[in-house]
Amino acid sequence: MTVVSEMLKTHPTGVGDTDEAILKNCILACLECLYSCTACADACLAEDTVADLRACIRTNLDCADVCDATARVLSRHTGSEGDLVRRMLEACRDICRSCADECEKHAEMHLHCEVCALTCRRCESACTELLAAL
Amino acid sequence: MTVVSEMLKTHPTGVGDTDEAILKNCILACLECLYSCTACADACLAEDTVADLRACIRTNLDCADVCDATARVLSRHTGSEGDLVRRMLEACRDICRSCADECEKHAEMHLHCEVCALTCRRCESACTELLAAL
Amino acid sequence: MTVVSEMLKTHPTGVGDTDEAILKNCILACLECLYSCTACADACLAEDTVADLRACIRTNLDCADVCDATARVLSRHTGSEGDLVRRMLEACRDICRSCADECEKHAEMHLHCEVCALTCRRCESACTELLAAL
Amino acid sequence: MTVVSEMLKTHPTGVGDTDEAILKNCILACLECLYSCTACADACLAEDTVADLRACIRTNLDCADVCDATARVLSRHTGSEGDLVRRMLEACRDICRSCADECEKHAEMHLHCEVCALTCRRCESACTELLAAL
Repeated sequence: MTVVSEMLKTHPTGVGDTDEAILKNCILACLECLYSCTACADACLAEDTVADLRACIRTNLDCADVCDATARVLSRHTGSEGDLVRRMLEACRDICRSCADECEKHAEMHLHCEVCALTCRRCESACTELLAAL
Repeated sequence: MTVVSEMLKTHPTGVGDTDEAILKNCILACLECLYSCTACADACLAEDTVADLRACIRTNLDCADVCDATARVLSRHTGSEGDLVRRMLEACRDICRSCADECEKHAEMHLHCEVCALTCRRCESACTELLAAL
Repeated sequence: MTVVSEMLKTHPTGVGDTDEAILKNCILACLECLYSCTACADACLAEDTVADLRACIRTNLDCADVCDATARVLSRHTGSEGDLVRRMLEACRDICRSCADECEKHAEMHLHCEVCALTCRRCESACTELLAAL
Repeated sequence: MTVVSEMLKTHPTGVGDTDEAILKNCILACLECLYSCTACADACLAEDTVADLRACIRTNLDCADVCDATARVLSRHTGSEGDLVRRMLEACRDICRSCADECEKHAEMHLHCEVCALTCRRCESACTELLAAL
C-alpha cells in the first residue's frame, strides 16, 4: 500500500510536524487491524467452541470499529484536531492491547486468533509510537 | 426510536450497573450526531462560502466517525469493555464540543450549522452524563 | 429526531425532486436499523444458544454495516450520485429483508430478535418506498 | 498486508468456492480505497480551488463509506450472504468508477487526485473481477 505515503506527500498543507513514516505506519496498522478483527470475529463465530469465544468476538468488533474511526481521523490534515488525534490514539492503543490479550488466550487453538493477536500488537505499538511522536 | 429502550431491556445479561435511561439517551445522541455532522459537512460543501467552512467540514467529518464508533461500542454489553467505553466517551465528548464550537461560529449565517451545533451540544452533554454515571 | 427534517430543509441546494418526508423516513430507518442490528448481534452472542444463532449474528453485522453506509450516502445532496443511491437502497432493502427473515425465526425465543425483525422490516419498507419515489 | 491471505486460510469453514487470490485482492483494494478517498476528500478541502472540487469531495466521501462496508461484508464467511455480496460489489464497482472519473478531471492539477483515481480504478477492477468469479 504505497498509496498512503503518496497521499501524505501530496496533501496541499502537508501533515505538519508529524513524522510521515510513523504516521503512515499507524494508518496502515489501523486499516490492517480493522480487517483482521472483523475477520477474526467471523472466524470465531464459525468455531464449534463459539460459546467460549464470546469475549473474543465482542472485543474484536469493538476493536474493528475503533480502528476504523482512528484510520479516518488520521487521514485528515486540514485544520487541526490535535486533541482528538491524541484521544483516539489512546482509545485505539488500549482496545488493541485488550484484543491482543484476548486473542492470545486462544492462539494455540485457533490460528486466526494467533494472526489477529499479532495484528493487534502491531497496531498497539504503532499507536504508542505515534503518540510519542506528536 | 423506542427501539433503543426495547433492546436494552431484552439483552440476556442486562446492561450491568449502567443507568438505562442515561445510556439510551447517549446512544440516541450519538446516532443523531452521526447524521447531523454528515449532513452539515455536505451542506457546508454546497455553500458559496465553502472556502471559509473548511475547519467546520473537517470537524464535522471527524465528529461523525467518532459518534459512529461510540454508538456501536455503547450498543454492546457482552463481556466487559469498561475502559474502552470511558475512552470513547471522552473522545466523543471532546470532538462534539469542538464541533459545536465551530458550528456556532457560522450559526447565524447557516441554519444547518445552528441545528448541528445544538445536536453536538446534546451529544457532548449525553457523553458527560454517562461518564459521570459509569 | 426532528434534526433530520431540519437538516433537509436547510441544505443550500435543497434535496432535489426527492420527497422530503420519504427521504427523512428512510434515513431514520437506516440509523435505527444500524443500532438495532448491532445490539441484536451482541444480544445473540450472550445467549446460551449462541451456536444456533450464528447466521443471525452474521446477518445482523452485515445489515448494520450496510445501513450505516446507506444512511451516510442518503445524508449528502451536493452534486449528484443518483445511481449510487439506487444501488445502496437495493442492497439495504435486500439485507434488511434477509435479516428480518432470520430474526423472525428466533422471535418467539428471543425478544431482541423480535424487536430487531420489526426494525429491519421498517427499514426494508422505507428503502422500497424511497426507491419507488426516486 | 499478508494478514488477509493468512486470515482467509485460517477460517474454520473456508471461504467456499470463491477464488482466494481474487477475494484477497478485492478486500485489499477496498481498504486501500477507503483510505485513499478519505485522504483525497481532505486534500481537496485544503486546496485554494476547493469550490471547484465539491463534486470530487462528495464522491470521495460516498466512495469511502461504500468501500468500508464492502470490505467488512467481504471479510465474513460464516453462513451465506451471496446476494448481498453481489449487491455490494456492484455498488462499490460503480462508485469507484464515478470517483475515478471525477478524480481524473483534476489529476493534472492535483497529485492527490491522480493517486486517488488510480486507487479507485484498481478497486473498480477488483470488484469487477470478483463479481465475475462468484
